[in-house]
Amino acid sequence: MSASAPGSSRTEHDLLGDRDVPTAAYYGVHTLRAVENFPITGTPISAYPDLVTALASVKQAAALANRDLELLDDRKVDAIVRACEEIRDGQWHDHFVVDVIQGGAGTSTNMNANEVIANRALELLGHDKGDYKHLHPLEDVNAGQSTNDVYPTAVRLSLQLAAARLLEAMEVLREAFAAKAEEFADVLKMGRTQLQDAVPMTLGQEFAAYAVMLEEDRARLAEACALLREINLGGTAIGTGLNAHPEYPALACRHLGEITGVPVTVAGDLVEATQDMGAFVQISGVLKRIAVKLSKTCNDLRLLSCGPRAGLAEINLPPVQAGSSIMPGKVNPVIPEVVNQIAFEVIGNDVTVTFAAEAGQLQLNAFEPVIAHSLLKSLTHLRAGCLTLAERCVTGITANREHLARLVGQSIGLATALNPHIGYEQATAVAQEALTTGASVHDLVLAKGLLTQEQLREILHPDNLARPHTRTAATVRA
Amino acid sequence: MSASAPGSSRTEHDLLGDRDVPTAAYYGVHTLRAVENFPITGTPISAYPDLVTALASVKQAAALANRDLELLDDRKVDAIVRACEEIRDGQWHDHFVVDVIQGGAGTSTNMNANEVIANRALELLGHDKGDYKHLHPLEDVNAGQSTNDVYPTAVRLSLQLAAARLLEAMEVLREAFAAKAEEFADVLKMGRTQLQDAVPMTLGQEFAAYAVMLEEDRARLAEACALLREINLGGTAIGTGLNAHPEYPALACRHLGEITGVPVTVAGDLVEATQDMGAFVQISGVLKRIAVKLSKTCNDLRLLSCGPRAGLAEINLPPVQAGSSIMPGKVNPVIPEVVNQIAFEVIGNDVTVTFAAEAGQLQLNAFEPVIAHSLLKSLTHLRAGCLTLAERCVTGITANREHLARLVGQSIGLATALNPHIGYEQATAVAQEALTTGASVHDLVLAKGLLTQEQLREILHPDNLARPHTRTAATVRA
Amino acid sequence: MSASAPGSSRTEHDLLGDRDVPTAAYYGVHTLRAVENFPITGTPISAYPDLVTALASVKQAAALANRDLELLDDRKVDAIVRACEEIRDGQWHDHFVVDVIQGGAGTSTNMNANEVIANRALELLGHDKGDYKHLHPLEDVNAGQSTNDVYPTAVRLSLQLAAARLLEAMEVLREAFAAKAEEFADVLKMGRTQLQDAVPMTLGQEFAAYAVMLEEDRARLAEACALLREINLGGTAIGTGLNAHPEYPALACRHLGEITGVPVTVAGDLVEATQDMGAFVQISGVLKRIAVKLSKTCNDLRLLSCGPRAGLAEINLPPVQAGSSIMPGKVNPVIPEVVNQIAFEVIGNDVTVTFAAEAGQLQLNAFEPVIAHSLLKSLTHLRAGCLTLAERCVTGITANREHLARLVGQSIGLATALNPHIGYEQATAVAQEALTTGASVHDLVLAKGLLTQEQLREILHPDNLARPHTRTAATVRA
Amino acid sequence: MSASAPGSSRTEHDLLGDRDVPTAAYYGVHTLRAVENFPITGTPISAYPDLVTALASVKQAAALANRDLELLDDRKVDAIVRACEEIRDGQWHDHFVVDVIQGGAGTSTNMNANEVIANRALELLGHDKGDYKHLHPLEDVNAGQSTNDVYPTAVRLSLQLAAARLLEAMEVLREAFAAKAEEFADVLKMGRTQLQDAVPMTLGQEFAAYAVMLEEDRARLAEACALLREINLGGTAIGTGLNAHPEYPALACRHLGEITGVPVTVAGDLVEATQDMGAFVQISGVLKRIAVKLSKTCNDLRLLSCGPRAGLAEINLPPVQAGSSIMPGKVNPVIPEVVNQIAFEVIGNDVTVTFAAEAGQLQLNAFEPVIAHSLLKSLTHLRAGCLTLAERCVTGITANREHLARLVGQSIGLATALNPHIGYEQATAVAQEALTTGASVHDLVLAKGLLTQEQLREILHPDNLARPHTRTAATVRA
Repeated sequence: MSASAPGSSRTEHDLLGDRDVPTAAYYGVHTLRAVENFPITGTPISAYPDLVTALASVKQAAALANRDLELLDDRKVDAIVRACEEIRDGQWHDHFVVDVIQGGAGTSTNMNANEVIANRALELLGHDKGDYKHLHPLEDVNAGQSTNDVYPTAVRLSLQLAAARLLEAMEVLREAFAAKAEEFADVLKMGRTQLQDAVPMTLGQEFAAYAVMLEEDRARLAEACALLREINLGGTAIGTGLNAHPEYPALACRHLGEITGVPVTVAGDLVEATQDMGAFVQISGVLKRIAVKLSKTCNDLRLLSCGPRAGLAEINLPPVQAGSSIMPGKVNPVIPEVVNQIAFEVIGNDVTVTFAAEAGQLQLNAFEPVIAHSLLKSLTHLRAGCLTLAERCVTGITANREHLARLVGQSIGLATALNPHIGYEQATAVAQEALTTGASVHDLVLAKGLLTQEQLREILHPDNLARPHTRTAATVRA
Repeated sequence: MSASAPGSSRTEHDLLGDRDVPTAAYYGVHTLRAVENFPITGTPISAYPDLVTALASVKQAAALANRDLELLDDRKVDAIVRACEEIRDGQWHDHFVVDVIQGGAGTSTNMNANEVIANRALELLGHDKGDYKHLHPLEDVNAGQSTNDVYPTAVRLSLQLAAARLLEAMEVLREAFAAKAEEFADVLKMGRTQLQDAVPMTLGQEFAAYAVMLEEDRARLAEACALLREINLGGTAIGTGLNAHPEYPALACRHLGEITGVPVTVAGDLVEATQDMGAFVQISGVLKRIAVKLSKTCNDLRLLSCGPRAGLAEINLPPVQAGSSIMPGKVNPVIPEVVNQIAFEVIGNDVTVTFAAEAGQLQLNAFEPVIAHSLLKSLTHLRAGCLTLAERCVTGITANREHLARLVGQSIGLATALNPHIGYEQATAVAQEALTTGASVHDLVLAKGLLTQEQLREILHPDNLARPHTRTAATVRA
Repeated sequence: MSASAPGSSRTEHDLLGDRDVPTAAYYGVHTLRAVENFPITGTPISAYPDLVTALASVKQAAALANRDLELLDDRKVDAIVRACEEIRDGQWHDHFVVDVIQGGAGTSTNMNANEVIANRALELLGHDKGDYKHLHPLEDVNAGQSTNDVYPTAVRLSLQLAAARLLEAMEVLREAFAAKAEEFADVLKMGRTQLQDAVPMTLGQEFAAYAVMLEEDRARLAEACALLREINLGGTAIGTGLNAHPEYPALACRHLGEITGVPVTVAGDLVEATQDMGAFVQISGVLKRIAVKLSKTCNDLRLLSCGPRAGLAEINLPPVQAGSSIMPGKVNPVIPEVVNQIAFEVIGNDVTVTFAAEAGQLQLNAFEPVIAHSLLKSLTHLRAGCLTLAERCVTGITANREHLARLVGQSIGLATALNPHIGYEQATAVAQEALTTGASVHDLVLAKGLLTQEQLREILHPDNLARPHTRTAATVRA
Repeated sequence: MSASAPGSSRTEHDLLGDRDVPTAAYYGVHTLRAVENFPITGTPISAYPDLVTALASVKQAAALANRDLELLDDRKVDAIVRACEEIRDGQWHDHFVVDVIQGGAGTSTNMNANEVIANRALELLGHDKGDYKHLHPLEDVNAGQSTNDVYPTAVRLSLQLAAARLLEAMEVLREAFAAKAEEFADVLKMGRTQLQDAVPMTLGQEFAAYAVMLEEDRARLAEACALLREINLGGTAIGTGLNAHPEYPALACRHLGEITGVPVTVAGDLVEATQDMGAFVQISGVLKRIAVKLSKTCNDLRLLSCGPRAGLAEINLPPVQAGSSIMPGKVNPVIPEVVNQIAFEVIGNDVTVTFAAEAGQLQLNAFEPVIAHSLLKSLTHLRAGCLTLAERCVTGITANREHLARLVGQSIGLATALNPHIGYEQATAVAQEALTTGASVHDLVLAKGLLTQEQLREILHPDNLARPHTRTAATVRA
């Protein structure tokens, strides 16, 4: 490899003419054009290491398939493979410089990968960067490929990788809720429907519901991931496989599975698979579902900890920072609040994905970059949110047990438990009298002789209030 | 007008051939085809009387303009005008039978109007329905017009009419909140930020904010309506005015203004106006804004009335129905809940409008029917929501004054008021001690000798807590 | 049953006092209050027969479970069951009069069902409507139930029923596309990516992709339906099963499965299941996915049929109505257009569902009515759209075969097929020359001696262009 | 100022205890906690220089108002003002390190500003960073302020600044379209409605519509900006102005206007203004409107340039990069495509803003950070999109004039122009015959003797086709 002065450049060529590329750059003229064409967000695709890794994996698999088919000589294949492995090890990511929002259906991302791999492979072969006659970004690195099969495959793979990490974070959060469910298993409290006092339950049941919810959402996310593993590699430009060897798709897919450990399969209809955004819309819908339920959970945590004196004050969230620049001692539920906002972002991202997916035309969807960008944002932000919520909030939650017990005792909602024993209409009258007079349901029922002390004790026993039970003789309505 | 046996029919013709139309029907073959082609929602356009009225107004204005230009003879014009006036009086609406969701960019709606008007005009002239040689739905009723200028104009007019009624309903609701603001002007309570006790305010200030919010939203809606009053009548098919007399747009617009009392104007660039959905997207955005704030308000009402015993219990919403089939005496905030749901629908409708507007192509947006449908739904449902909320909820709200006063006295948020007097750091220490020990801020400050009884009395006086005030000598920090 | 004069009424009572109910009405005072409280859309819940049927099924199952547990006597159970069966047969639907958008988390819908069933059962037992001492809407028809388990169960069941019909309609549309795929299997045409000429394919491949897409969407919808079949019946008010016999959930679920033929199961955690909107968000996401892809397909159909003279003009959609009130002979793609609009509505509905689901608080989501309304609309409109699209558009599509063949021959996209034979850079030069000079790729390559006539004939053979193939000796690049 | 070793730290204190802060850091313990609590996006608030600048402006205005009211001594005020001016000049931005998505309603952003300003002011006063007894972040820099009035005011100001730059970019794009409208003023072409050939127009009219559209959108954006200029500074915690001097709001507002040149005003009801997200929802709706119309415009550009041989091929977009890694010579409409994707992102952001705005509770909206983040993203990306579209696409567009003229001559849409002369029904027959036989409308009309050569020449003259005109004697229908 020849040395190069700082600021020096090499000349590259494309259909628009010649351009100088910095000698130090592993990317080439196609990438340079794209950087100039898309000065949109300032965020390069290297912001998503999963995507860069996935691109390298696909290129490596393609090179190996071409070797098997004797369409690319071993020396080139070896150099390409080594370059790809370096990238998969985290090297050269800073040469993936195209903006995350880009025109061209991912062509610039694919070109960026082709050029970085080619130039690194050239170096490994002892040539100068840009000396493409020895190894060409398009004719060799991209051999038998098209952006339209490489890019969707890489995006699917990167989503799969990011989703796996979200699944782990959701499990951390699920376990945090489950631990609290156990800790609060005996804390009786009033359940609420429509923000009105309803009937008793335990705080453990309340937290267990959040754990169950996460478990179900994890199952849905895993299902959505399965759809991502169906790829269109080998379909080339529009899925007809033009310029690809008939055995190429199966070979490339097998290599990709081996390289990544992800059990990818070839889609049955490559024309359909090339234009299809179904799997992206599906996972976006599932991420929105996760967001909706996380947000609802955070709303609940904020509501239950409303106080300290003029609110529900059922639970306490651990303080993690001062809450106000003006109100001394104020502590706010900032962790649930940040998770709410992540959820709102994910829900917005879903609309972006929906629009982009719908806008596809004929044999291709040109808007896959913004779909990839939106989904990778959603996946990584949700993961951060789950971990932060688990570690900085849920694990430190405490319950105001006496306060909760007192509220159950005072509650008019106890009238519901009397329903099977004194009837809906009489129970209604008792409830209304309790509300008007401030008396307790227990005392009113006793005073009116509707039930005996013993009957009331059994009916209103915590064990009987928070779960179904068979009525004993003592409590059966006459 | 000849009598017709029930079940009898007449034959009409279009480019697809002959079809039998029921003799009793004022619509014709074009409408018939559309009914068969669009069996989607089961809801006919007559569900929106404003739209039917607006169509008749446009047709009447066009006929009068054509008369002025001597392009249509007086006898025909008179019959058309009389038919239109009958429709504007509420007659014949049940003959507007095309589905609210329809293909064809509103052509079927325009055809439906042309046919009903033509057939009614024929009757008024003493002819049979369908005897179009005397007066033709397209050559006469539609003379100098195109769906592409008639339909958008009618839609704009109908939205304007529906928006005027929403504005009235919002004023009813605003007045209801303003009346409560006055009623509760002296009720001191704790304000909350991030669901945590903050600093005191009055319940009157809280309700006044809802009234102000509605006043601002009314102003925004009125501004959006102004955009609706710019019409493209006279642009014909694509805004170039092909087949329209150069003086036709101004004449038709003037007549339309006189007929409806709405000060419509002709757009400056009819090509742009014909394809432009901007005014619809704008009003949809404003309706979404109204929905967002109404929903937030209803969330607040539900939160403040949370209870009766285990919640904030600051205010009481009037009971309007039994709240539960199982919980006796339970009363729920059903009126705010229904308004929340209207808001969610309006927000969804905004996304529908956004999608439909974006999908327009070249010289026309083919998806205006679903835009009209969505906006008319939003306008009428929001109106119903505002009236229901005002009449069945807000006017009957009562405050739990003692409870509110007690919460202020106990509040740690009072420490904020001491901030300028004892400093943020010392105030923080007091707040934390109050929280830990259960003591009141007032007592702790006094016990620590940080302020005198007299200073505290002035600082914590209700008049000083809920509004800005100049510190007197007594309270200035040493 | 006693006769009743028209206009006569009976008096009923609830916690707010007495009200007159028309004697002819099967609903009672609770329904009456709800009708007055929610004058929102004008559309009663009877607009969704599936929902009414599902409510009757749940009530019937509950009565049978109560009979098994000896909590309700046989005479009452028989009458309730007969009333439910009549409703399931389509009777009394017009007495389900509560608005589709309602507050109260479905309480009014449940009350409406309780009252209609009770009053019809009373008649069957020989009593007057309203004579609830013999059979009570709440104590008997609603025995062991809460709105909060009955209503979600009924909604899930109704969605399942509506989804089954959508699945059928999607199959009709899939078959229509598959038939066209076969009919057009040999029609070579240019494929397009990013709206630019790409490489050849067959029109059959293009239509086959639509069929495959629908097949995949059907699979996703079936998966989402499976989630709907997990119910919370027996959880009563908040999922703790208060007032329900421990064996009730399993019994009620078994009866419900037998009555409806739908294999419902009881959720593992009834507290979670009672508040969980996950299954609704999931199916909404899948309906959005279906909408997105149907819309994309309709966009393609409209684009491919763009013309007749100044557009792509690849295919012809069957004319179903005159397209314009001003442009003679114009025929528009009104059927795809109406399907586009249904898709936009479904996408908007998904946002409504998302908002409503996120807004749930603590043990219940109060906004399930607007979720049910939105999903039932989406399901029924999508079904109508699929059938209309299949029957009035797809089956009648014809191809302009000569025009398509001519475009392939002229295409610069053929250069891609030469790529492996003459290299990307040389192919680029040929493509650019062809574009500039207007010459054909075939002729330029031959003239330059890059390939022989024989090689070109094989490379450009239709069989080799539209699918992967092994390069023969003749075409391998030197 | 004392020197500090690299890696050295100082100790700061908050209500949670002591923490070490790097000596080099201008931020303090509150910022440190926030960075740890919100590891969400990796993007610090310094990514939005407008926001940092706006924060410094607000702090400067507050200090000056406090000086006027003699609540802060001159020496402190001077130091604070100098620190703020340095920040407004672009210094110290890298010390604004809190994540753009954060809990706490902006408290952490306000704390970050307070700390950076305090520490820089301390340095200017000759003290060490962290030596807060000389000048305190909360008691001095934040004097008389709350996050809840400072943060919304700063956000509004930053949006105003970013919107001003978007307005400029939109003007650049508008001028580009207007220049093309002039260039193409005489290029006759077929207009299309519903993707079907309609009637003639000029390409200039088509491009003029895009320019008009942008002009209108600019007017809407300017209106929305006006709403942003109403601020709640002085309302402190919840708008009641607790701890603020009665004259403070007017003074602070006047200073802020002078510092920034933005004509800010104080809201009439500060309680309402503190909780109100209306102006944000409004501008978000307008940005969505701009996005929708930009996207529609880009869809049109991509459609009109569809080709080069198998598409409409009416215009040519300038090539800016190679379009494909497999298809030689292919050039794609990558610039419109990237603008489409920005539009989809903006539309998604609007939903995020909607959700966040609706989620506000009682006296504050805790989710303003994600609203600010979403709006600043939308504003900056739209600006980038407008400039890229203008400079790299619109200015280089060329027209295929001969092709366009040929299509007009062949068009069946010409039959519309004959409508007033031969009637709708006869014109329909001619159109259908033309379609079936391939003959031209002109020839058929002439052959049938419906009009003379002279009449046809006048009716079909380009000047008469693309704009309204008075019929001369020669062309009036008999």
